[in-house]
Formats: sequence, C-alpha cells, structure tokens
Amino acid sequence: MLEKDIIAKYFSPLSANAFGADNLNDDVAVLGNIGNGLLAINMDTLVAGTHFFANDDPTILAQKCLRVNISDLAAKGAVPFGYFLSVALPRKTTESFIESFAQGLAIDQRNFNISLLGGDTVKTAGPFTVTITILGLLQDSRVPRRGDAKLGDDIYVSGTIGDGALGLLSHPEYRGNNGISAKYSRHLSHYLCPEPRVELQPIISRYANATMDISDGLLGDLTEILKRSEMGAKLDINRIPYSQETQYILANEKNILPQILNGGDDYEVLFTAKPEHSLSIEKLSQNLPFCLTKIGTITDGRSLEIIDEHTNLNIEQFNLSHSHSW
Amino acid sequence: MLEKDIIAKYFSPLSANAFGADNLNDDVAVLGNIGNGLLAINMDTLVAGTHFFANDDPTILAQKCLRVNISDLAAKGAVPFGYFLSVALPRKTTESFIESFAQGLAIDQRNFNISLLGGDTVKTAGPFTVTITILGLLQDSRVPRRGDAKLGDDIYVSGTIGDGALGLLSHPEYRGNNGISAKYSRHLSHYLCPEPRVELQPIISRYANATMDISDGLLGDLTEILKRSEMGAKLDINRIPYSQETQYILANEKNILPQILNGGDDYEVLFTAKPEHSLSIEKLSQNLPFCLTKIGTITDGRSLEIIDEHTNLNIEQFNLSHSHSW
Repeated sequence: MLEKDIIAKYFSPLSANAFGADNLNDDVAVLGNIGNGLLAINMDTLVAGTHFFANDDPTILAQKCLRVNISDLAAKGAVPFGYFLSVALPRKTTESFIESFAQGLAIDQRNFNISLLGGDTVKTAGPFTVTITILGLLQDSRVPRRGDAKLGDDIYVSGTIGDGALGLLSHPEYRGNNGISAKYSRHLSHYLCPEPRVELQPIISRYANATMDISDGLLGDLTEILKRSEMGAKLDINRIPYSQETQYILANEKNILPQILNGGDDYEVLFTAKPEHSLSIEKLSQNLPFCLTKIGTITDGRSLEIIDEHTNLNIEQFNLSHSHSW
Repeated sequence: MLEKDIIAKYFSPLSANAFGADNLNDDVAVLGNIGNGLLAINMDTLVAGTHFFANDDPTILAQKCLRVNISDLAAKGAVPFGYFLSVALPRKTTESFIESFAQGLAIDQRNFNISLLGGDTVKTAGPFTVTITILGLLQDSRVPRRGDAKLGDDIYVSGTIGDGALGLLSHPEYRGNNGISAKYSRHLSHYLCPEPRVELQPIISRYANATMDISDGLLGDLTEILKRSEMGAKLDINRIPYSQETQYILANEKNILPQILNGGDDYEVLFTAKPEHSLSIEKLSQNLPFCLTKIGTITDGRSLEIIDEHTNLNIEQFNLSHSHSW
C-alpha cells in the first residue's frame, strides 16, 4: 500500500471531527489563536536509508530535518517559532555524531529564529530516525489549503525545479541508475540541505489560494492540488524554471526530464492566485532571493493538460497523458 | 551514553531561550493561552523491541502509544484534545496490522475524547516505530513542574506500583530472567495497556506542587523530582501501594522488590503537596477509581532516606544507600 492510501483509508477517518486538521488533506494543521496568530503545526519523519543516507554529515542532516518541516509551514505563510524533536538512535551511535547533529540544530535555530521545546530520545535496533513536530504562527486568519485553487488562478512556483532530484542522483552513495553524466555540487547541496521559502510569507498570506510545498515532485504535487480543489490546469512546460546546471543537463540528456518533474526534494512552494493579483505579486517578488515563476493556469477541466508546443516532449514518460483525468 | 545524559548535554542547551520548555527538565512543554487554557504538549516515541514486543496486538499497542503520552499530560493536570502521529512502517507491514492499529487509535480517541490532527507515514528498514505529539489544555495557570517540591510536602502516588514491571516479566516473549514463579493477567494487561490517571486533574490542578508520571520506576522518578527541586525525602517503604497479585508475589519472592521499585511502565502519578491540603486531597480522592497513597515527606536533606523499620530490607539492592546524596 502507498503511504497516501494508508492515510486516506485508515488515518483520515480518525481526524473527521478535528477542528483544523482538514481531514489530513493537508500537511499542516491549523488550530486556534495563540499569542499573535493561529497555531500551525506540522510533523515529518526522516529515516536513514529512506529519506537520507546513513553516512550523511550529521550537522547538515539536522538542518535538513528541520528544513523539510519549516518548508511545510512556509508554504502556508506560517512563521515557525519552535519544535519538538524525537530521535531514535541505533546502538552504535557515537557521541560525536550526536554532538554534530545538535550543532546542526543550533545553526538552524539561529537561521530561522526557532527553539527546541521538548521531545524524546530512544534506542532502536533499526536506522537513525528523526521526527520533528514544528509549531508556527499564521499571521492571517485565512489558511491557504491544498483544495483552495479557483478557476482562472495563475499557478506559481518558487525557485528552480529538479535540483533536489538531480542531487539525489549525484549523491556518492546513490545506488540506482543515475542516468546523468554531469554532476554539480549545487544539486547535491540542495538535496542534502534544502532552502525553505520562508521569504514568501507576505505573498502567501495576502494572495495565495491553494498552496503546498513540493516534496514529491512538481507534477504529482500539482496533481494533488488539482484533485483536492476539484479543478484542472494547463501547465506550460517550457516555463518551468531550472537552474543553469539543470539546463545544461537537460540540453544533453532529455530522458532525465521525467525524473526532474516527478522527483522529490525540491522543497519549493507551489501556489495559485487570482490573475488580478499578478502585478502585486510580481512587485513583491522583486525582493525575493529566488525567482517566482508563473507556470500555468487553473481550469475547470479536471485534468492536467501539459502545453509543450515548442519541445515535442514524449509526455507518456511522465506517467501523465496529455489529458490525465480524475 | 544514557538518554538523559544526551538530553542534558546536547539538547537542553537548544531550549535555553524557549518559553515554556523548562530547559527540557520536564517532559511537558507549556506554551501560551489557546482557547480556554494553556497549551501543554508532550512527545513520546515507542520502538518495537525497545518499548514493546513486535508481536504485541496492534490494537492494544496503539492504545499504549496514546496512553503513555496522555499519562505525561495527566501528571500536569492537562486535558488532552488532539495528537499528531508518525508511524515508520517496516516493509513487511500488512494492511491488517495497520487496520488493527487504527482501530486501537479509534477506541482510545473515544475513551479520552481526542482526535488525530496530523502526522506522517514513512517506510523504514528497521522496527515499527511510533511517535506521538499530544496536545492538551491546562485549566490552571499554575504549571506543576518536576522541580516544584517544597520542604514539608507530602509525597503521594496514585494506583499501585509494580504492575507494569511484573507485566514485562510476565510477557510471553520476555527473554530475560523473569525471577517470578506466579504470573497474573492483571500485570500483563497493565504492561500492554496502562491507565493514564486523567481523573487526577482536579487534585493536580488545585493542590500539586511537583508532579511527574512514573515511567522509569518509582525510586528513580522520585529521585528525579528531588534533584530538580534540590530537596530530599523520607520514603516509608511499607506504605508503597501494591495490588493483591503483587503482594502475593512479594510475599513469596522478596528479591523481586528492586525490580518493582526500579522497573518502568507504572504510568502512575507521583506528586507532592502541602500537608495543609491533606484533608482536601483525601476528600477529592474518595471519588477516584484508584487509590491515592501518601508514601513520604519532602525534606531539606538532599538525599532519599528510605524508612523500612518493619521489613529489614536489603537496601543496597535498590542502587540506593539509606542516605543517597546528590
């Protein structure tokens, strides 16, 4: 069973009456007012051998664990303030590993102005496992959910797509067929330690309808927004933003595109907004340390239509037909 | 390294500036006002092979996972309302296991009036691992911490001591030297599915100074309260409450006492209160579905003095001298 099918079948019913849980359709629960905002909470687990490699630098790994959680809050426009940490330690864990891991936490506590609030430390016969429950504040009473895309909305994506997926393929311990000949440190760095888009908060809070962070691939996560919103989209594939390094790889290895668009670990933000906010969003985006790109439009077609006039891509590779209905 | 030493050395400094985290000296973080109370949060992880047996009934296991978290909140007088759940599933996990686990969650959601608010589902190459972050409300603005025991306080314990430890020794898959000849289903049931003492809330909120739930053994956890409070205690060992089944075992196997007093899984509440509240506490305790027993007094001696005039126990067995100073 796929994880999302387990959640839908067995865990969603357990949140049916829970205020703020959105039936687990969204990663982030939004509870009542606390202090100056609404309390937003997200929980993510990372397991050695599944979400990272057992020999990854523990300092950078600690930052990744925090950042994938911060990324979920950032996609909702919530500002993190603290977190609970559970670590399950294999018996062979050294003290220097723990020390380095704690250093990474300390670095990102300063970077993101957050504190450790509590947690648990246990032993395991299995791999190193980290669970973080992160708490943040939503300044706005409006909570942008995955299911909030409206007909005619522009579709935006932050940063560049594919750096995480190519980073995984570039990882020295990656054992699959990596399919790429050129490897760039940019990609590997992004895989090891993504940049949650906390700077998007003013834009998300004011203008976003549907939002989510891209952790399971652009196409799959866009499809998730469309399904939850009961909408379709036209996606202009030629507008999808890539880093220079990714463009170079794509120019030489076209077959890698499906992995870039379906691969995980982007941790960019995907959101929709009314076209009338286009100029305001463009203006606010001038100050961002990353680009913000309009890549398509929400339609009422209940399908994801990929516009690719200029490149004649082999769309079947994406596990999506030109008109993939639900 | 012991888990508590890891926390003290590497994780406590990360919460130095965090409001409500009490420097990780306490299991429960207490944040600001939300709705009708203060938000209290606790996070506990249970790992197959460490905290439970891999073949334990998943329905009852799910209840245990919730209850050990609820127990932490109950010790603070906080009423739980919701939780986040992370499960790391071994690849061989069957759908019927997940279904049974979810049934156990549903049963205790009804028992304790709580809902699932969010979480994560991931794969692991290791054992089944469950992390729960539970949220509750403290009705009172006073937060009873581990370090709040005052000179002259009475020391109370709820329920009976040792059922969890004897339950572990009675477990059909327990591989150590169990040291007991008689086995009782009461003990095993308590180990598999403890009873968090949520009914103590009115007493804790009104009268308790220092509190904690007993998860690592009565003597160790009392010592924890004394160290945090910079106090000592006189503990009348003949007053410690045992179930009839435990009394029978103790009558026949005196050597088992250290395991009863130092064993885990009691999930009873240990608290201290001013002697002037003694009558009020006794009156309120009449309505409880379990006993409440005064077992000692807080002193300024910075040591745990065990009073055992009637039984002439071999105190050295407890890893505590008659006057064990810190």
